[in-house]
Amino acid sequence: MSGTDKTLLTGTEAGENTASPSLAIILVEPQMGENIGMASRAMLNCELTDLRLVRPRDGWPNQKARNAASGADVVIDAVRVFDTTAEAIADLSVVYAATARPRDMIKTVMTPRHGVVQLRAKAATGLSCGVIFGGERAGLHNDDVALADVVLQAPLNPGFRSLNLGHAVLMVCYEWFQDASDAPAEFLTEMDSRQATKAELGNFFTRLEAALEDSGFLHVEERRPIMVRNIRNIFQRAHLTEQELRTLHGIVSALVRQPHKR
Amino acid sequence: MSGTDKTLLTGTEAGENTASPSLAIILVEPQMGENIGMASRAMLNCELTDLRLVRPRDGWPNQKARNAASGADVVIDAVRVFDTTAEAIADLSVVYAATARPRDMIKTVMTPRHGVVQLRAKAATGLSCGVIFGGERAGLHNDDVALADVVLQAPLNPGFRSLNLGHAVLMVCYEWFQDASDAPAEFLTEMDSRQATKAELGNFFTRLEAALEDSGFLHVEERRPIMVRNIRNIFQRAHLTEQELRTLHGIVSALVRQPHKR
Repeated sequence: MSGTDKTLLTGTEAGENTASPSLAIILVEPQMGENIGMASRAMLNCELTDLRLVRPRDGWPNQKARNAASGADVVIDAVRVFDTTAEAIADLSVVYAATARPRDMIKTVMTPRHGVVQLRAKAATGLSCGVIFGGERAGLHNDDVALADVVLQAPLNPGFRSLNLGHAVLMVCYEWFQDASDAPAEFLTEMDSRQATKAELGNFFTRLEAALEDSGFLHVEERRPIMVRNIRNIFQRAHLTEQELRTLHGIVSALVRQPHKR
Repeated sequence: MSGTDKTLLTGTEAGENTASPSLAIILVEPQMGENIGMASRAMLNCELTDLRLVRPRDGWPNQKARNAASGADVVIDAVRVFDTTAEAIADLSVVYAATARPRDMIKTVMTPRHGVVQLRAKAATGLSCGVIFGGERAGLHNDDVALADVVLQAPLNPGFRSLNLGHAVLMVCYEWFQDASDAPAEFLTEMDSRQATKAELGNFFTRLEAALEDSGFLHVEERRPIMVRNIRNIFQRAHLTEQELRTLHGIVSALVRQPHKR
């Protein structure tokens, strides 16, 4: 286990002020243990471990939750249970509510993407932050929403908005982790090789075109330039590594060496 | 049901070239019906309906899948089952694989956020696109990964990477829908009122500060300017609506009218 994980797993479960900013997840009246477990798994996927339950329907501990957590025991073991939402969020300074846009309340509404970036920025200044989620049947009560600073509402299919509870938790945790991630948006797995240089690619083109010339493939002189360009474009698009270029050189050699197959 | 939904629900299930770009979701050897159902629900949450299964362990149809879909019957009813991944993706032109970074293969890897934006851009040009996911136990086989153009891999906790299958599908579908959404990142639900103007806010400050002056609250002359600024900042931060300002005027009036309480 890496150093990062150790910090994570020991540091955040009691809500201490750790080096890495943390986010508490609060489930109000969750019903199914499976969903609590899936939420725990989603949290740990995103390096979050502070899960709080308010009046879980089936009590706590809950074996179905542990099973569905698929190994996220560090989250399950640290779960704290509260009688009221107010008690569950008492130590937090910033609380957002993941729910449909509230009626009859004037409230700031943010997309999860925008809102979680705000939350993470607040957490980075040392503020303790959390997100509350309602239960499967009725969602959050307006009195709970009124305890929150901001409502998080994801743009979704207007004809089929209802998210699974575990999915809603994943969405928020995922945004949290992506905001912190410095992973490159795109890269090529290059194994032991490196991406080919344009000179190496040019050498292959010279070799291939000479072989095609010898074979008679480029015999129609007026079509020759466009065919050469088209062939070059095929290999340009492939973003070849130096190793793959050597493979292609080998293919050309092998095909040239077998006149009996023509 | 809105017009958008009708287009969605009738247009994409057979993979036709519809006005709105679509994305096929292909699950290879999924095991638990619950996960197929949760994936269906996540798809419909994001206006996607083209679900394809390759060798589902428990066959098809699957009542557990239908139950877990929580009403996403339009997805479940349109599911198509295939013997091989190659058959399942035969009509698609662009296929990305959601999986861990492949070993022993040179492959372009993208984050879901970056990759799904690319996919949607391709789909918008009329290309038929899909994402393949592996089963719960073993994920995608390398032979299936080799059929894909790009690998999608989410940055996640390096010590706990394994995503639930339904969660992985949600992540991709969510990115797909967010990329298309023109929902404002942040707004204030204003009900029947509108946000107050600075002039209206200024009127309230004048009123409040006069009342505080009369009450003796601002009697220390040298602290007066800073106290006034602090009080103004409290109400500035609240982004008040015109209706809320009227409520605050009423509160000041009510408190001023009760000298017996002092």
